[in-house]
Amino acid sequence: MLKGNNVVLIAVGDELIAGLKKEANISWLSAELMLRGQDVVAMEVIPDQEEVLVDMLDRWAGRVALIVISGGLGPTHDDRTREAIAKFLGLPLVAEKDVYDRIISRYPAELKESLERSGERQAYIPSGAQPILNPLGSALGFSIDFKGTKIFALPGVPQEFREMARVVLDFFKKDDEVCVGLCKVVGWPEIKLKDHIANIIREFPANVMFLPEPNIVTVAIKGPKHIVATLQGKLMKLMKGDILPENASSLEDAVVKLASKLNISLAFAESCTGGMVGESVTRIPGASSVFAGSAVCYSNEAKEAVLGVPREVIEQFGAVSEECAVAMARGAANIFKANCSASVTGIAGPSGGSERKPVGTVCFAVTCFQRCKSWTRHLQGDRETIRLWSNNIALEAVWRELKDLAEKSGRNEGSN
Amino acid sequence: MLKGNNVVLIAVGDELIAGLKKEANISWLSAELMLRGQDVVAMEVIPDQEEVLVDMLDRWAGRVALIVISGGLGPTHDDRTREAIAKFLGLPLVAEKDVYDRIISRYPAELKESLERSGERQAYIPSGAQPILNPLGSALGFSIDFKGTKIFALPGVPQEFREMARVVLDFFKKDDEVCVGLCKVVGWPEIKLKDHIANIIREFPANVMFLPEPNIVTVAIKGPKHIVATLQGKLMKLMKGDILPENASSLEDAVVKLASKLNISLAFAESCTGGMVGESVTRIPGASSVFAGSAVCYSNEAKEAVLGVPREVIEQFGAVSEECAVAMARGAANIFKANCSASVTGIAGPSGGSERKPVGTVCFAVTCFQRCKSWTRHLQGDRETIRLWSNNIALEAVWRELKDLAEKSGRNEGSN
Repeated sequence: MLKGNNVVLIAVGDELIAGLKKEANISWLSAELMLRGQDVVAMEVIPDQEEVLVDMLDRWAGRVALIVISGGLGPTHDDRTREAIAKFLGLPLVAEKDVYDRIISRYPAELKESLERSGERQAYIPSGAQPILNPLGSALGFSIDFKGTKIFALPGVPQEFREMARVVLDFFKKDDEVCVGLCKVVGWPEIKLKDHIANIIREFPANVMFLPEPNIVTVAIKGPKHIVATLQGKLMKLMKGDILPENASSLEDAVVKLASKLNISLAFAESCTGGMVGESVTRIPGASSVFAGSAVCYSNEAKEAVLGVPREVIEQFGAVSEECAVAMARGAANIFKANCSASVTGIAGPSGGSERKPVGTVCFAVTCFQRCKSWTRHLQGDRETIRLWSNNIALEAVWRELKDLAEKSGRNEGSN
Repeated sequence: MLKGNNVVLIAVGDELIAGLKKEANISWLSAELMLRGQDVVAMEVIPDQEEVLVDMLDRWAGRVALIVISGGLGPTHDDRTREAIAKFLGLPLVAEKDVYDRIISRYPAELKESLERSGERQAYIPSGAQPILNPLGSALGFSIDFKGTKIFALPGVPQEFREMARVVLDFFKKDDEVCVGLCKVVGWPEIKLKDHIANIIREFPANVMFLPEPNIVTVAIKGPKHIVATLQGKLMKLMKGDILPENASSLEDAVVKLASKLNISLAFAESCTGGMVGESVTRIPGASSVFAGSAVCYSNEAKEAVLGVPREVIEQFGAVSEECAVAMARGAANIFKANCSASVTGIAGPSGGSERKPVGTVCFAVTCFQRCKSWTRHLQGDRETIRLWSNNIALEAVWRELKDLAEKSGRNEGSN
């Protein structure tokens, strides 16, 4: 089973096991190594216990090409990675004072005392190991060989881990043969999408995964480069209008890129999403060239005062109504002087639902120049799920409006 | 090393290894099991490869009390968990038609055909295993014993996994002896905090972890109940004003709870956070009783038109200035008719910085009735990190203002 390019990644930390912190180091490294043609056979999260790490090393060292360990190199006594590796290899720990002094010299005077104390542990690595300088923090990393397995130990602080893991990644070039292609399909339920494209997928010797998120399913295709490209092309053709362009990593990214290209300004009016739509869009660097703003109006008074929603609309139809959504979207376009706008108003729960408008009822509107559309969705799930779906439904609507504009302007240009 | 209450959790899925999806099932279960006094010795993420799972079972079965496997029970050919367990145990797979029929009967007619086809795989479990009904999806779960180890296999769809994992959790009551206590410390750099409380912690036989997030460090204390309570009490006394109340799970939660208690309405004006502050606050159910709204004004025009920031302020001091922050906060309080407001305006990068105002320069203001404060921070990190810090700094400021109000009203009440 285990061959030359097999990799095992180990994250050490009680806080990971206790669910108090999300593991993000080895899962990131795993993705990077996969893109470089390495086979990750296991990602292991273990507690800060020397004997568990020794047991893991005993299991994998000599069987795989590479083991990378994240964490357990800090200054406190529950940091046991150094000791575990030294114990497993039967080697003493020795101080790398020179490298550690270089680390300490970077720090301001006020922190030096704590760091010098920490050096009594942090400067030590197994005898014969290569120290790896930490350019961002104070814990030393190191690498050492054992029976054909290269073992790396790197600190668990995310920025430090990623920076120092370059030493690992530099071994491997990105693999030109095997690659992963992504098709992000908007607005399809996963099970329907699977049925719809099952026949096409079956024709290709590629590994296809479906990754559902709210209102968007990522189809990930792993295989030889030319097969991935052909299959992606077929899906693009079949699903035309529902796949995000390849250069877009998310709906908000597609929206910002297309609006930039068309020189369209955007605004939002949000109630139950509470700012999520604006936050999503501004996650994209360069959003400032198209995003004017978002009015988060939670209270009815704010909907009236800030967005100019007529009081009668709220009184007659309620704040969760298409009528109110339309007035909100028009209001946002108006106060932010934007070409396109979208609004979301709904009941995210857990309370606030009624028989006629249960939790999950969300009304939307989108305006684009003179056009205006509104619609209602009945969403399932908890508060956060309903908010995420609402966010992505609003963004989908804006994306489709922008695509329409792009097609029309393309057609006009073509006919001139 | 391995004893009666040791647990190993395994998540199966190429998408997890490829970094396309974040593992959230076994890390959640791990936390739940820890609270019930179980020792999780490893969480393992492995690819959809039968032989890797067989290898894992070979390693752990018979050595630990419990193994829970998430994923690999779906209808497609890359779902190999059933086969791997049957192979490891040397048992045939048998169909549980009755249970599967109960599952199918729940579905609408349009999906039945796909499901009946899927039954050719999804209805099968190892001979002698106990089927576990899936109340939310179509994949069957099961449990089986082997040499003193109870093995559970559950589907990887998050809602289904959590629902069906109740069968596992029901074995264990929450442990009254061992517990985890959290102290969330606001506004302290981790290394300073560690030095500050090192002496107190040393006195107690508890396992203490530090979990830094932007502008907040969670001190997690695991140990016998009375020791955790005593240590928490000591920390609360020492750090008084900087620890969130025990009933608050986050800064936004503390803000919403305290504002509700004081009957104070809140508003925000956001530039670089793009809606994140509003989004954070509205994540808390019941936020509608205190949150009026947030004006996300990215463009200078929107800052003028929506928030009423005087054009001269932007011309003279720039949009990233304390003067602008003050005008934004006052504007938000004004348009949303709120008692307290906070504003954030800064340069999140990667572009937009200058020598005098580099990327990471963020200006804040907070108003509370007549009071108004403003200040500037120079934050480090990438765009998302700077935005997260900004969010939590603004929330901290509101929290501290509310605490001041609470103390004053307490004092007034006391003196009456």
